[in-house]
Amino acid sequence: MLTDSLTNFRVTLASRPVGEPTEANFRIDRRPVPEIAEGEILLQVLYLSLDPYMRGRMDAAKSYAAPVAIGDVMEGGTVARILKSRNRSYTPGEIVLSHSGWQSYAVANGDGLRKLNPESAPISTALGVLGMPGFTAYAGLRNIGKPMAGETVVVAAASGAVGSAVGQIAKINGARAVGIAGGKEKCTFVLDELGFDAVIDHTKADFADALAASCSNGIDVYFENVGGPIWDAVFPLLNDFARVPVCGLIAHYNGEVSARPDRLTDVMRTILRKSLTIRGFIQREFADQRPEFYQEASKWIAEGRLKYREDIVDGLENAPRAFIGLLKGRNFGKLIVRVSE
Amino acid sequence: MLTDSLTNFRVTLASRPVGEPTEANFRIDRRPVPEIAEGEILLQVLYLSLDPYMRGRMDAAKSYAAPVAIGDVMEGGTVARILKSRNRSYTPGEIVLSHSGWQSYAVANGDGLRKLNPESAPISTALGVLGMPGFTAYAGLRNIGKPMAGETVVVAAASGAVGSAVGQIAKINGARAVGIAGGKEKCTFVLDELGFDAVIDHTKADFADALAASCSNGIDVYFENVGGPIWDAVFPLLNDFARVPVCGLIAHYNGEVSARPDRLTDVMRTILRKSLTIRGFIQREFADQRPEFYQEASKWIAEGRLKYREDIVDGLENAPRAFIGLLKGRNFGKLIVRVSE
Repeated sequence: MLTDSLTNFRVTLASRPVGEPTEANFRIDRRPVPEIAEGEILLQVLYLSLDPYMRGRMDAAKSYAAPVAIGDVMEGGTVARILKSRNRSYTPGEIVLSHSGWQSYAVANGDGLRKLNPESAPISTALGVLGMPGFTAYAGLRNIGKPMAGETVVVAAASGAVGSAVGQIAKINGARAVGIAGGKEKCTFVLDELGFDAVIDHTKADFADALAASCSNGIDVYFENVGGPIWDAVFPLLNDFARVPVCGLIAHYNGEVSARPDRLTDVMRTILRKSLTIRGFIQREFADQRPEFYQEASKWIAEGRLKYREDIVDGLENAPRAFIGLLKGRNFGKLIVRVSE
Repeated sequence: MLTDSLTNFRVTLASRPVGEPTEANFRIDRRPVPEIAEGEILLQVLYLSLDPYMRGRMDAAKSYAAPVAIGDVMEGGTVARILKSRNRSYTPGEIVLSHSGWQSYAVANGDGLRKLNPESAPISTALGVLGMPGFTAYAGLRNIGKPMAGETVVVAAASGAVGSAVGQIAKINGARAVGIAGGKEKCTFVLDELGFDAVIDHTKADFADALAASCSNGIDVYFENVGGPIWDAVFPLLNDFARVPVCGLIAHYNGEVSARPDRLTDVMRTILRKSLTIRGFIQREFADQRPEFYQEASKWIAEGRLKYREDIVDGLENAPRAFIGLLKGRNFGKLIVRVSE
C-alpha cells in the first residue's frame, strides 16, 4: 500500500507555556500514517495556517474551544490534497480546506471539509483573505462595527491577515481607515499597498499623540485584535456611539497580569457616558454569512480593492518558531507554513 | 397680577461635590416668579423626580449632558400644572411632563412638554414607571438585553424605578428574573409584590455565593445600573453571548478611584472568550420607541403585570437630603418630591 511508506510528521503540544511559549513547549515526532477505513479519506497537508488564537488552545483553561491536550497534535486550519479516498464525495487530487492541525497527513471522514477551486484563487488564500481571518474582518465589521461613510475605523496589526482586510473593507464601506503597525516597512505597505488613509507606527515614542492627531474627528469603530498599550491610546479617542468588535487580544495571550491600578471603573463609566458598544465575537457565530463573504470578497480581490500579503514559511519543523514570532508581530502578512509541495 | 404674589422656591447648585454630595453643595433660595411673555406659559411644579443621573450633572466634567453651572437650578424631570398661558397650545389647569428642575415654578415656551391625562394614570407615574426610568428598562431590554424565553435576567436596585421594571418586563418576555436588593424589606417586596423569580440581598456576607446558587444556569442578561461590588459577583456568572446593557453606575458616581489591581485585562479577555456584549446607553437614543412604550406599559399596568412603588418625599426643601439618600440606596421605590399639591 502507498500509505505504508508514508510517515506522518507531527508537531504536538509537549507542555503548557508559562507566559510566552518557547520551542520546548512543542515536540516534533514521526508516526506511521494509518490505513483508511470505508468512508474515510487520507489528506496530505499542503499549507498550515498559524493564527494568534492558537495560543489560547495551549492553555488548560477553557476558552471558547477546548484546549489541546498534552501530547496531542496542535490544532490548526489547513489546505490539503486528497491522497486516498474511500468516500464517494471525494476524489484523489481534489484540494480541500480542512482543520487537520500541525501535521503532514491526516485521516478524515469528510465532514466539515470545503472543496477549493485552485483556478479561482490561489489555494493558500483559503487560510487568509478568503478564509477565517478575512471572514473575521468581514463579519466583525458587518455585524458589530457597522462603519458608515465618513466614519473613522481604526485597526491594529494592520498589515496582518485580519487587520489588512478590516481597513480595506472599511474603505469599501466608505469609511476612513487608520491602521496601526510596527515598523517602517509594515507602515509603508499599509499606506501604499493596502491604501489605508493613514498609518501609525506603534513602535514610536509619540504613538499615542500621532494616533490622536490622525483621528482628529475621533474613532467610530475600533476593531480590537491586539489589546495592550494600543487599547490605552485608542480608548480616549472613541466617539459617542463607537463600536468595538473584539476578535483578539494578542497582547494578553501570554497571561501577563497588569500591575497597574484598576482601569475597569473608568472604562465602564466611559462606556456609559459615550454609549459605547464592546462586543466579543468569534467568526463562526456568523457562519451563515460565509457564502456571501466568499462571493463579495472574491469580487473585491478581482477588482483590486482587497489586497493581501502572505508570509510563507517552509517546512513544518519551522512552525513552532514561526508561531512564537507571530505572537511578537515578527510576521509580515498572513503567516502560513508550506507543509508539502 | 397673580404671579406678582408668587415666590419661586429654588434649589441651586452651590458647589461641586468632592466624592459624596452633602447638603452644603445645595442652596435654597427664593425668587420672584417672572411675568410671562407672549407665547410663554407659567408652570407650577407638582412633582420632581430624583434620579441617580443627577449626580453626574453636579460634576464639572462633560458627561452625556452639560453639567449644571454653579448657582443654577438643579436639573430634573417634573410634572407640572399650567398656571398661566399666553401660548395657544396650553390651557391653565392642564398637566404636563416638563424638565423644570428643582424649583416650584418655571416659565416655559411650550417646547418639549408632554400633556398628561390624569384619568389614564396617576400623574406621578410620568416620572417613574411610565416615564424615563420605565422607558430606560424597556428600551435597554428591547434593544440590547433582548431576553429570550427561559433566559436568566439579573438586575440590581430591583425595588427601584428602573430595576423593578426590568425584572417585570423580562418576565413578560418569558425570561427568569433575578433581582438584587438591599435589606429584607426590599427583598420581600421584589419577590412577593413584583413577582421576581428570585431575589438576593447584597448586604449579606454570602451575597456572591447566593447569587451564583440562584443563577445555576448562568446569567444571559445583566442590566447594569449600579456597578461596584455587584459587578464583581455577576461577571463570572455571565454565559456565552450574554448581553450587558449599561444604563447607570451609581456605585461609581462619587468618583472613587479603585486601589485594586487592574481588572480590565481579565474583563476584556472574558468579553472575547464568551462573546459578550457590553453596551452603554441613554434612553433618549431610542426616543422613537416611546409611543409604543407608553401603549405597552399602560396595558401591562392595567393587567397587573407591571407594578411600581413610589417613595414620595414632601417639600422641595427636603430634596437635597432625599437625593443624597438615593445615592446610598435609602429610598424604597421611585423617589419623587411632592413640590406642590
